Amino acid sequence: MANAKRTAGSPKNGPAVKRTRREDREWSPFQASKFSQRVCNPIRSIVDTIKRPEKTTKEMIPLSLGDPTVFGNFPPSDVLVQTIVANVNSGKCNGYAHSAGTPAARAAIAARYTSKESPLTPADIVIASGCSGALDLAINGLLNPGQNLLVPQPGFSLYQTLAEAHGMSVRHYRLLPEHSWQADLKDMESLIDDDTGAILVNNPSNPCGSVFALDHLKAISALAARHRLPIIADEIYGNMSFDGHSFHSLGTVSLEAPVLVCGGLAKEFLVPGWRVGWVCVHDRNGLFEDVRKGLFRLSQMILGANSLVQSVIPTLLSPNEGSKEQRSLRLFQKKTMTQLQSNAMFTVQELQDVEGLRVVRPQGAMYVMVGIEVDVFEGFDNDMSFCQQLLEEESVFVLPGKCFGAPNFFRIVFTAPREKLALAYARIKGFCERRRK
Amino acid sequence: MANAKRTAGSPKNGPAVKRTRREDREWSPFQASKFSQRVCNPIRSIVDTIKRPEKTTKEMIPLSLGDPTVFGNFPPSDVLVQTIVANVNSGKCNGYAHSAGTPAARAAIAARYTSKESPLTPADIVIASGCSGALDLAINGLLNPGQNLLVPQPGFSLYQTLAEAHGMSVRHYRLLPEHSWQADLKDMESLIDDDTGAILVNNPSNPCGSVFALDHLKAISALAARHRLPIIADEIYGNMSFDGHSFHSLGTVSLEAPVLVCGGLAKEFLVPGWRVGWVCVHDRNGLFEDVRKGLFRLSQMILGANSLVQSVIPTLLSPNEGSKEQRSLRLFQKKTMTQLQSNAMFTVQELQDVEGLRVVRPQGAMYVMVGIEVDVFEGFDNDMSFCQQLLEEESVFVLPGKCFGAPNFFRIVFTAPREKLALAYARIKGFCERRRK
Repeated sequence: MANAKRTAGSPKNGPAVKRTRREDREWSPFQASKFSQRVCNPIRSIVDTIKRPEKTTKEMIPLSLGDPTVFGNFPPSDVLVQTIVANVNSGKCNGYAHSAGTPAARAAIAARYTSKESPLTPADIVIASGCSGALDLAINGLLNPGQNLLVPQPGFSLYQTLAEAHGMSVRHYRLLPEHSWQADLKDMESLIDDDTGAILVNNPSNPCGSVFALDHLKAISALAARHRLPIIADEIYGNMSFDGHSFHSLGTVSLEAPVLVCGGLAKEFLVPGWRVGWVCVHDRNGLFEDVRKGLFRLSQMILGANSLVQSVIPTLLSPNEGSKEQRSLRLFQKKTMTQLQSNAMFTVQELQDVEGLRVVRPQGAMYVMVGIEVDVFEGFDNDMSFCQQLLEEESVFVLPGKCFGAPNFFRIVFTAPREKLALAYARIKGFCERRRK
Repeated sequence: MANAKRTAGSPKNGPAVKRTRREDREWSPFQASKFSQRVCNPIRSIVDTIKRPEKTTKEMIPLSLGDPTVFGNFPPSDVLVQTIVANVNSGKCNGYAHSAGTPAARAAIAARYTSKESPLTPADIVIASGCSGALDLAINGLLNPGQNLLVPQPGFSLYQTLAEAHGMSVRHYRLLPEHSWQADLKDMESLIDDDTGAILVNNPSNPCGSVFALDHLKAISALAARHRLPIIADEIYGNMSFDGHSFHSLGTVSLEAPVLVCGGLAKEFLVPGWRVGWVCVHDRNGLFEDVRKGLFRLSQMILGANSLVQSVIPTLLSPNEGSKEQRSLRLFQKKTMTQLQSNAMFTVQELQDVEGLRVVRPQGAMYVMVGIEVDVFEGFDNDMSFCQQLLEEESVFVLPGKCFGAPNFFRIVFTAPREKLALAYARIKGFCERRRK
C-alpha cells in the first residue's frame, strides 16, 4: 500500500514532479488550516465579551458552568472511586484498548441500554472521548459537507461547532417555553429539505432542564420517520429526571427511524472531566449497517477513550444483581437526584414571584432557564446587559440566553450548595428590585 | 448568532424552502459519511488477512503489539500509581478541564521541554487525547485538503490514516536500512512540490527502533528550511534511546523551520491506554502564530484529554528538584531503559547470525526490524507469507513489514519477558533452518 502511494509524486516511476520555486521564497507566516478556521465555539466568544468586575467586595458566585463538581457538594460514588483505585493498583488497565472500546465496557453499555423494542449488542456500541467525542462521531459519521442538521433552539452550541467544522450547516427548530420547552414540530418540519441529514434531539435538555413526555418523543419520531430521517439523540442527562417526569430514550421510542444515541459517564456519575462517552447504534431494519461500520472506522483515527476510565464501566453500568455495589450505586443515584431536585424546587420557589422574571419550571438535568421581561426594567435592554450588570453589581455569574440562541433568557446551573444558591437568588432579587421601573 | 442561522432555511423571513419529496420516498439504507469512508487503517486490513492457527500445541507468543504493558513486566512508576490514587481520592480531578488542558499540566509540559534555543510557555502547549490525538491536531491544524504530507517509509500507518481522512495525501520518503534507517534526503527533497504542507519526522522510530544523530536532524531541518516547510515531529519515543545514541528533539534542533512536536505519556511512562498526549508549538519568528490559534480552536471540538490523567502530569514531568518523587522517577526510567536495552541487545545477539535474516541494530524505542532474504528460503516468497507460516508453525506472531511499507522485513516488539523472547527466537531460528534451501 505504501509503496503504491509513494509513486504519486516520485520522479522515479510516476509523472515528472512539477518543480517548485519554494527555494526562492521568503518565509511568510503559515495560516491555520481552513478546517480549524471553521471551528467556532459561540459560547466562548459571547462569554469573552462579558467583563469580570475588577474590584468587588462580594464573594463571587458562579452559576454558569455546567459542571456539578465545582463546589464539591456532588461527590462521585464510592463504588466509582474504589473501583478505579483498585484498577490503577492492579496494573492491568494501562494498555491499549480496542479503538471502539474494551469488550467488557461495550458489553456493559449494551446490557444497560438494551430493550425488547431495540435490542443492543456490543457490536452496536462505539466508545469515544466523552459525549462530545460521541456527538462528533455521530455527526461526522452520518452527514456529509453541504448537508444540514436540525438542532434545538435554545440548545447546546457544540452541535453547531461540530457540524460547521465538518462543513455542514445547522438549522434551528424552536423549543417553546410556554409548553415546557417542547419542540415546535411545525417549525421543525418546515426546516426539512433535501439536504437535511438528521434531526438532533437533546433530552433532557441543556440549557432548558426540560424532559420530553413520551407522547412528544413519539411525535418527533413519527415526524422523522415520515421524512425518512435518522435521529441523533443527545441523552447525556438521561435518567436525570425529577419526580413526575419520566425519561424515555429515543433509542426505544423511535421504532421506524433509526437512532444514534449519545451518552456517557459525565453527568450521571459526576465525572465530566473523565471523558468517556459512547454512541449506541439503534438500527432499524439494517438501515444503519453502513453507518455502524463508518463509526467503527472513525474510531480508529484517535483510539478514543482511556482504558483506565473504561475499566470502571462494567461495575457502574452493569453491577451484579443484588451486589453491594448495586445497592451502593442506587443509593448514590437517589441521593444525587434528590439533591438536584431539591435545588431545582428551591430555585423555582425563590425566583418565581420576582416581578419581571419568568422561571420555566425544570423537569430534570441541572439547569433552569429564566426569562427576562426587559420592558419591566431600566438600565439594561437584553440578556447580555442583564448578565453583565448582575455580575458587576452582585458578583453572580449566570450565562446569557444568547449563548444558547435564547435572547432575553438566562441560564442558572443549580448545582451550587444551598447556602450559595440562597445568597445568589437574594442578590438577583435585590438587583431586579433596584432596576424595576 | 443562532437566530441569524435559523433564517437560512426558514419560510418566515428567508427565501422560500424548497419542498422536498421526502414523504414519498421509501426507506433506503443510509450510507456512512464520505469522511468515514476515507478512514483506512492499513495495518488492520493487512493483519486481518493473517489467519490465526486453529489448533496449536505451542504457547502463542505475540511480539506484534506496540504495547509494553501486555506481559506485566514493564510496570508503571510507583509515583504515577500513588499520585493518581491520591488524586482520585481527593475528588478534585473530576471536573471539566480547559479544552487545551489544565494550566498546571501545560505548565509542566512547557517546563519539561523548554530550552534556551526554543523557549516554551504554557501558551505553546495543547493537550490532546493521546499522541494520536496530538498528531491529528497537528496535521488537521496545519494542512488543507489537497495538500500532501511527507512521511517516512517504513513508518507508522496512522499518519496516512489521518491525512487521507482529512482529504490530504501522503508521500513516502525512504528510510535506509543500510544507514541505520536514516532518511534518504535526496528522496525526501524530490517529493516536495507546491502542494507539500509539511514534513513529518518520527524519531525515535516506530517501527525501526532507530534514533537519528544530531547531524542528521540538522540536515533534515536545513532541508525543511530551504523549502520553507514546517516540520511535524512525532517524538512519542523521545528519551527512549540506548547507550551511545542521544535523543535530540527537533523542537530545539530546527532553528529556522517551525516545528510541531507531538508527544505524550504513553511510552515513557508505560500507560499507552491512558490517552494523554500533547502538541508543543515551537514557533520561529511568529510563523506559527495563526497555527497556534488554530490548534486551540480545534481543541474546543472534543475537549480532549481526561482531567484525571492530566492531574499526574505535573508530578511526572516536573517533580520538585531533589524530591523523593524525582529520585523515584529517575530510578524508574533507568530501570525501564536498562531492561529495554538489554532486550534489544539480546534480540540482536540471538538473531544476527541466522542465515537469511538481517537484523538492523536498534538504537532506541522498543522495536527492531529484521530483513528477510527471501531467496535463501523456500515455501514463502515475501514477508506476509513468512509471518503467516511462522505463526502457523511456531505460534510466534510478528507483524509483516507490509504494515509499515517495508516489504520483506518483519517487526519485533521486544518488550516480552526474556524467557518468552528466548523461546520465540529459538522458534524463529528453527523455522528458518527448516525453510532454508
